[in-house]
Amino acid sequence: MSSTLRVTVWNEGRHEKTHEEVRRVYPHGIHTVLAEAFRGAGFEARTATLDEPEHGLTEKVLAETDVLTWWGHMAHQDVSDEIVNRVAKRVLEGMGLIVLHSGHMSKPFLKLMGTTGALKWREAGEKERLWVVDPSHPIVAGLPEYFELPHEEMYGEFFDVPAPDQLVLVSWFQGGEVFRSGCCWNRGLGKIFYFRPGHETFPTYYQKEVQQVLINAVRWAAPGDLPKITFWHKPEPLEKLG
Amino acid sequence: MSSTLRVTVWNEGRHEKTHEEVRRVYPHGIHTVLAEAFRGAGFEARTATLDEPEHGLTEKVLAETDVLTWWGHMAHQDVSDEIVNRVAKRVLEGMGLIVLHSGHMSKPFLKLMGTTGALKWREAGEKERLWVVDPSHPIVAGLPEYFELPHEEMYGEFFDVPAPDQLVLVSWFQGGEVFRSGCCWNRGLGKIFYFRPGHETFPTYYQKEVQQVLINAVRWAAPGDLPKITFWHKPEPLEKLG
Amino acid sequence: MSSTLRVTVWNEGRHEKTHEEVRRVYPHGIHTVLAEAFRGAGFEARTATLDEPEHGLTEKVLAETDVLTWWGHMAHQDVSDEIVNRVAKRVLEGMGLIVLHSGHMSKPFLKLMGTTGALKWREAGEKERLWVVDPSHPIVAGLPEYFELPHEEMYGEFFDVPAPDQLVLVSWFQGGEVFRSGCCWNRGLGKIFYFRPGHETFPTYYQKEVQQVLINAVRWAAPGDLPKITFWHKPEPLEKLG
Amino acid sequence: MSSTLRVTVWNEGRHEKTHEEVRRVYPHGIHTVLAEAFRGAGFEARTATLDEPEHGLTEKVLAETDVLTWWGHMAHQDVSDEIVNRVAKRVLEGMGLIVLHSGHMSKPFLKLMGTTGALKWREAGEKERLWVVDPSHPIVAGLPEYFELPHEEMYGEFFDVPAPDQLVLVSWFQGGEVFRSGCCWNRGLGKIFYFRPGHETFPTYYQKEVQQVLINAVRWAAPGDLPKITFWHKPEPLEKLG
Repeated sequence: MSSTLRVTVWNEGRHEKTHEEVRRVYPHGIHTVLAEAFRGAGFEARTATLDEPEHGLTEKVLAETDVLTWWGHMAHQDVSDEIVNRVAKRVLEGMGLIVLHSGHMSKPFLKLMGTTGALKWREAGEKERLWVVDPSHPIVAGLPEYFELPHEEMYGEFFDVPAPDQLVLVSWFQGGEVFRSGCCWNRGLGKIFYFRPGHETFPTYYQKEVQQVLINAVRWAAPGDLPKITFWHKPEPLEKLG
Repeated sequence: MSSTLRVTVWNEGRHEKTHEEVRRVYPHGIHTVLAEAFRGAGFEARTATLDEPEHGLTEKVLAETDVLTWWGHMAHQDVSDEIVNRVAKRVLEGMGLIVLHSGHMSKPFLKLMGTTGALKWREAGEKERLWVVDPSHPIVAGLPEYFELPHEEMYGEFFDVPAPDQLVLVSWFQGGEVFRSGCCWNRGLGKIFYFRPGHETFPTYYQKEVQQVLINAVRWAAPGDLPKITFWHKPEPLEKLG
Repeated sequence: MSSTLRVTVWNEGRHEKTHEEVRRVYPHGIHTVLAEAFRGAGFEARTATLDEPEHGLTEKVLAETDVLTWWGHMAHQDVSDEIVNRVAKRVLEGMGLIVLHSGHMSKPFLKLMGTTGALKWREAGEKERLWVVDPSHPIVAGLPEYFELPHEEMYGEFFDVPAPDQLVLVSWFQGGEVFRSGCCWNRGLGKIFYFRPGHETFPTYYQKEVQQVLINAVRWAAPGDLPKITFWHKPEPLEKLG
Repeated sequence: MSSTLRVTVWNEGRHEKTHEEVRRVYPHGIHTVLAEAFRGAGFEARTATLDEPEHGLTEKVLAETDVLTWWGHMAHQDVSDEIVNRVAKRVLEGMGLIVLHSGHMSKPFLKLMGTTGALKWREAGEKERLWVVDPSHPIVAGLPEYFELPHEEMYGEFFDVPAPDQLVLVSWFQGGEVFRSGCCWNRGLGKIFYFRPGHETFPTYYQKEVQQVLINAVRWAAPGDLPKITFWHKPEPLEKLG
């Protein structure tokens, strides 16, 4: 881990090219807004998008990434399996992964979870409230006990993921649903955080509480000085101890 | 464990004596409604209340109890520490404990949790929806994916309890709050289930989904054929192995 | 779920055909010993092996299976991806899965875990002791607080799996290693249990404590009356509540 | 939280006064060795002992403490309930607590756990190996995948504590036992770490891996910028949302 945390912000990057209502909110894409927020927190941040060669995620880029954030929606199937395997391998080796909103159906997330990622949804622009349920967790440092997003897409339970190792935020939606909106897991030497909000037609990623969660999550997910794990076959005979 | 599960339904038993609006809903107390439901499921069910000698929880009664359910509200401080210690000891030895609604501030629950049990609340008779978030858990067997209580007291996060070992139900409230409403913990050889609903002025415990949850919870919390755990000092010298 | 639990015992089934030292211990394969034990517990048990058509795991067989047990070692790569996907899908729908010993590297297990399954190992025929660390868990019902296997292959940490939802057994090995030997996870509507022991050259699966663990695990992993989960898009406009 | 972490190292402080074999190893008490190690890591460290007024844990001292470490053994019962309640309250408000070795039977730990803390033990000076089972956890940063203590008291399972929220280290003992040696829990806004090693007659706390674990644990347990949690009664009528 370098002393300055290095974040790679990955975005599918297509909605804003084809949908005027998305472009109005994120004229240069969600990734540029997130990268800006991360730089404001003192991190090095680069961006990568689907339509770049290797989706912008070369071996070199990933080797130089402490934490990768992932936003995708309409083109999950266009992400090549080779890059998915590369990302998953790096997570198992220790790279942090932050999966955003519709990334719940992205290939790297599903590969690391082993489940379908399915959920309920409704695009009604309703109010969402995110409640802190684990106040001692570093991901909610500096937050109020709840915060509101005035207009968001609804995601509802059952959310088909493994029970999170730590559940830090639960959402309330105006229409009658709840959702486990901030979920932490470990996989191999890596840490994964799923954060629910962020529909492409709402200015969610400009909101300061949302940025605070993501900045905290980068710090939490970044690998520290990891133990060197060996996987070996220790041949016979049994070494005598004692 | 006897082949027929033996449930003791404990109730403070005071509201229904002093409050007409409670008596209208539970003329013979919450405990009689629950005991009836448990008998309907094939369990042996007895009741015990605060104003009986030893609060109805003699050593003999507890020794013959597989699962104890606990409802209390206005008189937590009137429960004697001796009985609290007796209940907690039996839980650590394997007796199941189901804590209901305002029992979140009861002495046995707080002693076993180690936290304050604090939460937010509002008596507005608002709508509550309980969503299943762990569909494979035996406590939600036979339930729909969510069920509604038309009028309930609100409980809101942060609920100051240890992170549940298994979280099975999350509540949505009309007024904007969420709550971890079905929580499982182990303590010693015993299992504990906290279930949020059940304000004394609403007919919550007559509702069939609520009864199903509690019947399932009794089955889950009942001790099986527990391993015999020994706590010993194994004297020197070190026994040579191998 | 039928009233009688239906177990399918899957075995690679090759070692015993090619290795005399395996045939001496399991002349008809590990699967026949396990199926016999399950029948003794009152379950319906059928067997299936790698070299049968569709590896013996047709859609019909899996549809009629409450719990699948999996032992494989030398031929993980010969299991077709189609069957792996079929098994994983059934687990997510509720079928229980018990993964045995070298099955830690089997395709269905790794697909559901999202990790490498790597570990340390040594074939020295050393002593293993399995200690109960969650005595209230149904999987250790009727067991002593520890039991010994006089000769086993060693598996050592770090075991690259997600942190188990419940950890029930931890192994001690004569040569200086420990291992999380009894691990529970949920995936989708299904339950998964990994149980470490069972090298093909030792009579581990004849030992009564081992059989007790596996019989308990079948009961634990079998799906109950699962809630019907729907994954839907609820169209606008937002239904007004309250 | 101040920018420099403030640690208070609490020690019973009696063994070294009365037992020559302890004084040989820790001439000025275990607390002075730990405080020195913490200062070397850049923390402010003060010490407090049982026989000081208020056991050295005045309201002022605790208010100025980010993380409290606790070593006690022969005199748990001499710790006054008032101080125990004060310590537990501060933990629930966010102060970190690191409980060492025989502190598994200390009053503050048991109050926060709700269990008996019982375990097996043997004083044979045998070898202990601590294996990392959660390599991504910050408490094992910079450690090897296992480390050895050449001579320690044995602690064996079943260890009667709530299942840890995160299990980071598991011990192997020469005599045939295992132990969950590095356990994390949250209680209220505070974090608790239990670390097994540290019998008073062995130079365990001088060993560099042990000091690394404890330094890491201080950083992990220190409260960050905690959300302000309110516990309120929100009066009727129900505020209308939307």
